[in-house]
Amino acid sequence: MMLQLALIGFGNVGREFARLLLSRREWLRRSEDIDVEVLAIATKRHGSLLSDKALNLERVLHELEEKGTLRGYGPELTELSPLEIIERCDADIMVELTTLNIESGQPAIDHIKAAFRAGMSVITTNKGPLSFAYEDLRGIARSRGAQFRFEGTVMDGTPVFSLVEKTLPGCEITGICGILNSTTNYVLGEMYRGKDMEQALEDAVRFGIAEADPSMDIDGWDAAAKITTLANVLMEAKSSPRRVNRVGIRDLIPEAVTNAAREGRKIKLIAYAERVKGVVKTMVRPELLGPENLFWSVDGTSCAVTLKTDLMGEITVVESNPNLPQTAYAVFSDMVLIADSIKRGVASSS
Amino acid sequence: MMLQLALIGFGNVGREFARLLLSRREWLRRSEDIDVEVLAIATKRHGSLLSDKALNLERVLHELEEKGTLRGYGPELTELSPLEIIERCDADIMVELTTLNIESGQPAIDHIKAAFRAGMSVITTNKGPLSFAYEDLRGIARSRGAQFRFEGTVMDGTPVFSLVEKTLPGCEITGICGILNSTTNYVLGEMYRGKDMEQALEDAVRFGIAEADPSMDIDGWDAAAKITTLANVLMEAKSSPRRVNRVGIRDLIPEAVTNAAREGRKIKLIAYAERVKGVVKTMVRPELLGPENLFWSVDGTSCAVTLKTDLMGEITVVESNPNLPQTAYAVFSDMVLIADSIKRGVASSS
Repeated sequence: MMLQLALIGFGNVGREFARLLLSRREWLRRSEDIDVEVLAIATKRHGSLLSDKALNLERVLHELEEKGTLRGYGPELTELSPLEIIERCDADIMVELTTLNIESGQPAIDHIKAAFRAGMSVITTNKGPLSFAYEDLRGIARSRGAQFRFEGTVMDGTPVFSLVEKTLPGCEITGICGILNSTTNYVLGEMYRGKDMEQALEDAVRFGIAEADPSMDIDGWDAAAKITTLANVLMEAKSSPRRVNRVGIRDLIPEAVTNAAREGRKIKLIAYAERVKGVVKTMVRPELLGPENLFWSVDGTSCAVTLKTDLMGEITVVESNPNLPQTAYAVFSDMVLIADSIKRGVASSS
Repeated sequence: MMLQLALIGFGNVGREFARLLLSRREWLRRSEDIDVEVLAIATKRHGSLLSDKALNLERVLHELEEKGTLRGYGPELTELSPLEIIERCDADIMVELTTLNIESGQPAIDHIKAAFRAGMSVITTNKGPLSFAYEDLRGIARSRGAQFRFEGTVMDGTPVFSLVEKTLPGCEITGICGILNSTTNYVLGEMYRGKDMEQALEDAVRFGIAEADPSMDIDGWDAAAKITTLANVLMEAKSSPRRVNRVGIRDLIPEAVTNAAREGRKIKLIAYAERVKGVVKTMVRPELLGPENLFWSVDGTSCAVTLKTDLMGEITVVESNPNLPQTAYAVFSDMVLIADSIKRGVASSS
């Protein structure tokens, strides 16, 4: 089968995904009978491309690496906005890779709605739309018979959503807790070893773990958007990041961390979702953990999620120091699962 | 759709599965459009039943609880052997729930072959067939267009096989390690707290964690069969339990455990599978772990598996103190996944 993609947003994740598509092209053909073509690429500052034939991904990557722009690529160059590209592009799947807007989830929500309206399925790594508008988007996807997948939003490519959907039939998720933010986990680990927060944050930015402005991380907004995403999708919470009872690590006293360390304990930023009297309550806060706690050893940029279930008790999934290739794989695996559903003629999932 | 089952082996797991079928009957109908009927039940010592109509599971469970035998159930009582029941039963799925024979994997292997020959799909919780004859059985299943699922063999119902198959498309498993045996994990935990092995084993038997003869556990055979199962299925190892480089905990000196405990370290029985020069090597041995190791806090009867992959790095799955309901759920989830494949008209998996 032929699978045509429109990539809206083409930063580090998009480029890594393009490389993965190239390196797995043969595997996709041989094992999955999928021929992937990219028809559109929208970047924020480096020009956008739109075509009715496959773009040459090697050349796209080469132009960006060598010249830092797509403006010399050829007649496929377009001045259309991402929204217009989605409306005019004849792809099967729109891959939304823009960055999180913690105020509203926009413009990603509009991108996704436009894609569904145009009959496309959607993959996103952006937790904005999931944490602000999941129920709405799922409804539109179902009414249009479109697929909507988003494994990269919370645990990079480590399966959480597909774990529940594909491998735990009939299991109800009754609670969730996890270490969901890499930057704070890294920073708290460095503070545990005696570094101060400022220095640890500088290192995190230098190593590419954190953004230049890491306030989304240390104020707990990133973790809040992720626990909301998990709660909305897996527990039908209908919540938004602002409704999370949120305490970040900005005001954490260094002595609290070092005093805990002296007793062999660590402070970790933990996110929770729990159903209390029928309502899903979400919370993000620093917690003191001893080594008997599974999360104690989840260090560096690693993350972990524990799912509490009715039939299977507690299941914990841990990812070890994920990086770009994992997030790119999230998009890749979502794409293969959508292709599988299209082959089966299944209308809508999630 | 109608789904008819033959249950070969009906001990604790079988009965718990029957209870789960009863309690989820409505969910199966409503959400999955599956009507499940059990046509045959073979027990070792309490009589067997074979019918061309649905057996009354409530009555089966009641007879066993009240009278300890099925011999008063009715005309469905049969003197046929399990193999004959499989051959004559007109079910869609044979559920193999007999216990592990670590010498050969029999008679479960013959049961499974007979079921495939009779055109049935197979679910098993018995790691014998997987560790001794996986390649052979998978070949027969494929040639017959039958499904073969076995989530309960290694981590009870916690998804490992379906995790890889359903959620990690295109990911190669390059190595595996894990705490796979509940009894030794419990015993080592008790020794860590100062108990001697004999007393800890007696407790394990009393609490229903271990069999009356726990030598399968403490000599590492159970862990060996499980790592072989994982390696055969996920790494195409073509191995058997006897080829595992196996050291149990029988000869562990109590002082080794208590000395480690004084330094905050624990001894855990760890199983490994690694590809070395194209060949998969498997190993079971006690190892000294510090609290920085994720497995350090996997205590009690909990188990954990780390999958090393090419595209996703390391993913760890932890199950918390599983019990009968989890293993029964393994059979239940395998059943739903097989039904899903039948609906899709898919021939064979795994």
